[in-house]
Amino acid sequence: MKILVINAGSSSCKYQLLEMGAQSVLSSGLVERIGAPKGCLTHKIYKGGNEEKIVREHAFPTHVEGMEEVIALLTDPELGVIEDKSEITAIGHRVVHGGEDIAAPVLVDQRVKDIIRKGGTLSPLHNPANLMGIEVAEKLFPGVPNVAVFDTEFGMGIPEEAYMYALPYELYEELKIRRYGFHGTSHKYIAGRTAEYLGKPLASLNSITMHLGNGSSMTCVKNGRCYDTSMGLTPLEGLIMGTRSGTIDPAIIPFVMEKKKLSAREMDDLLNKRSGLLGICGYTDMRDVHSQIAAGNKRAKLAFKLLVRSIKKILGSYMVLLEGNIDAIVFTAGIGENDNLMRAAVCEGMEAFGIKLNQAENNERKSCARAISAPDSGIPVLVIPTNEELQIAMATKDVIEAPSF
Amino acid sequence: MKILVINAGSSSCKYQLLEMGAQSVLSSGLVERIGAPKGCLTHKIYKGGNEEKIVREHAFPTHVEGMEEVIALLTDPELGVIEDKSEITAIGHRVVHGGEDIAAPVLVDQRVKDIIRKGGTLSPLHNPANLMGIEVAEKLFPGVPNVAVFDTEFGMGIPEEAYMYALPYELYEELKIRRYGFHGTSHKYIAGRTAEYLGKPLASLNSITMHLGNGSSMTCVKNGRCYDTSMGLTPLEGLIMGTRSGTIDPAIIPFVMEKKKLSAREMDDLLNKRSGLLGICGYTDMRDVHSQIAAGNKRAKLAFKLLVRSIKKILGSYMVLLEGNIDAIVFTAGIGENDNLMRAAVCEGMEAFGIKLNQAENNERKSCARAISAPDSGIPVLVIPTNEELQIAMATKDVIEAPSF
Repeated sequence: MKILVINAGSSSCKYQLLEMGAQSVLSSGLVERIGAPKGCLTHKIYKGGNEEKIVREHAFPTHVEGMEEVIALLTDPELGVIEDKSEITAIGHRVVHGGEDIAAPVLVDQRVKDIIRKGGTLSPLHNPANLMGIEVAEKLFPGVPNVAVFDTEFGMGIPEEAYMYALPYELYEELKIRRYGFHGTSHKYIAGRTAEYLGKPLASLNSITMHLGNGSSMTCVKNGRCYDTSMGLTPLEGLIMGTRSGTIDPAIIPFVMEKKKLSAREMDDLLNKRSGLLGICGYTDMRDVHSQIAAGNKRAKLAFKLLVRSIKKILGSYMVLLEGNIDAIVFTAGIGENDNLMRAAVCEGMEAFGIKLNQAENNERKSCARAISAPDSGIPVLVIPTNEELQIAMATKDVIEAPSF
Repeated sequence: MKILVINAGSSSCKYQLLEMGAQSVLSSGLVERIGAPKGCLTHKIYKGGNEEKIVREHAFPTHVEGMEEVIALLTDPELGVIEDKSEITAIGHRVVHGGEDIAAPVLVDQRVKDIIRKGGTLSPLHNPANLMGIEVAEKLFPGVPNVAVFDTEFGMGIPEEAYMYALPYELYEELKIRRYGFHGTSHKYIAGRTAEYLGKPLASLNSITMHLGNGSSMTCVKNGRCYDTSMGLTPLEGLIMGTRSGTIDPAIIPFVMEKKKLSAREMDDLLNKRSGLLGICGYTDMRDVHSQIAAGNKRAKLAFKLLVRSIKKILGSYMVLLEGNIDAIVFTAGIGENDNLMRAAVCEGMEAFGIKLNQAENNERKSCARAISAPDSGIPVLVIPTNEELQIAMATKDVIEAPSF
């Protein structure tokens, strides 16, 4: 069975075609700068262990033209990985916000599209684009089922005392202001892989996942379900990120708005796009931050220390929420998978809690799931590469194979 | 030596007269509704283990008239505890915000008054009132030294990675936006009493203090100094409080402002005065919350659970920051000293971290410093009554007795 996974942004479209039998990627790519005078399509083909890359630069007036060219490449007599688009059994879509109405992956129909549109109130940047991706797929793949997989899915499982904010209750009733959590697809995938790695049933897994990438979030997993998560109503809350502030004193916001004469929109922009590592040291990429630290840049050092401290603090919170019953702590995503210095700094001074790294293993670069803790570490420390596309494809397969389908 | 402690608000003035030899309170009181048609002065006299209360209800046009009546009562031939106001050696003032310029208690001169005025940018409700209190004291007690003791003092000791927010760096440079911390007088007092209780030098004390009252905050004490604190630029951050939200997703603020058409000022009001326990269940006092829970009020139960969870999460954070070297965790202030159900809920499920309550002792009501942990608890759990007035008086005494004075 072949499943196409689509992650549509407002001017971009990421995709991946997977063969579900072997859980292997046949092809993947990205259409960028849709609507701009010069767009770009980067298409990758994986055959027999090799990767071939094709780049096409010209205008893609809308997502439709972009995806039409993707279909042409996928079915190209020479370069193609399938003969006809009818070989695609289903299409899985990443949708950011399901609001309170949907948590589980779901077959797209008119009701679901309405809910995704409504979820746009809470995620005005992403949901409309995700919906457009679905509509383009409906047009280009008539008759093929579309499945929506929500980034809020995993986080929606948390209990009331984890999702409610201590705000006037009517803000929850009227505006649905609550914690939703994001990166749910990644966190759910990692929970599954962690249970597998430990040889434990998922239903009894207690773990803490640190998804550290461009955006970063942590989840606390209790009995295989999300018990708390660091992102909230939006992906701004929690950890310090590349350009996002993470958690701050809420009173800073009206204060800065008044002093700097900023509108609500401008303040939101400042918090989401001009803060985080960028705000502190001028760099968003952790690799740049490290080379700046090596060059003696004090602000880069501060940015690193701030991020480490924000991770450690949430780690401690979740250890307490799990009452010390922790099967593993897990690093994933760009920084989590690749940044040994970050992992070492997070685990430093954690011996009293049964966390002890194997420094040599931590310093290795590997792309497989593995433990980086010392043999005598009470709690295993794992590095597990995340794979959101595979998780979306698996969820899509489950939906179309369900008896009710 | 007799020291008068003054805590002036915009329309109120709390005071306490202490005899420093015995560290005993001679008299204390509160002038309320200053400037209103009908003000109220409540004056208490402590003599030979007895307490006498005098209430005077009439207009106090300004703080001056209020404090003049207080002086008259203190020196009253029948009711007075001193013969003449000249017996007062010094006056200690609670000042909320020292900004970045002053941390330590300091003798008030023109420079200090200017700094307090400047600190008013960061604490517009409190600093101007605190300054007025100083000026009234200067007028009514000419020649008596005034000492300012800042609520930000203890929190100012935290390292850069604890006080910086991941915001554009220029907001720190221009507007001094950073974590300051509050309740510093209480946290400092408790750190001292904790060291004393444990028979340990303060300089080697590692502890976590939960100041749970109308406003609530926690500090992490490392080697006797504040290493992290939950309140930030303002007293809004951190724990859920009576009417304050504590930490939330910062993006909620611009979102709510746009949806509800609120100004920055109105939003600040919503977060500070209409949120917290009040926002969730309509009650601000934990005693009311408990009786509502007993009556089956689900929102009251939720409010309680939210507060417990917010305390536990910060407790875990600080345990990790202390790398597990924790000499004691300490409850103080109204809720911390009196609410056995809250203490039990916070300590529930903490056995894995070496925290185990003696339930019987926890359920006792006592007004002395004491341990409520089980004999086999790895970490002692203490209840220590706070005493900000005594701490201010001791700091005042230290300043005027310093060789440089």
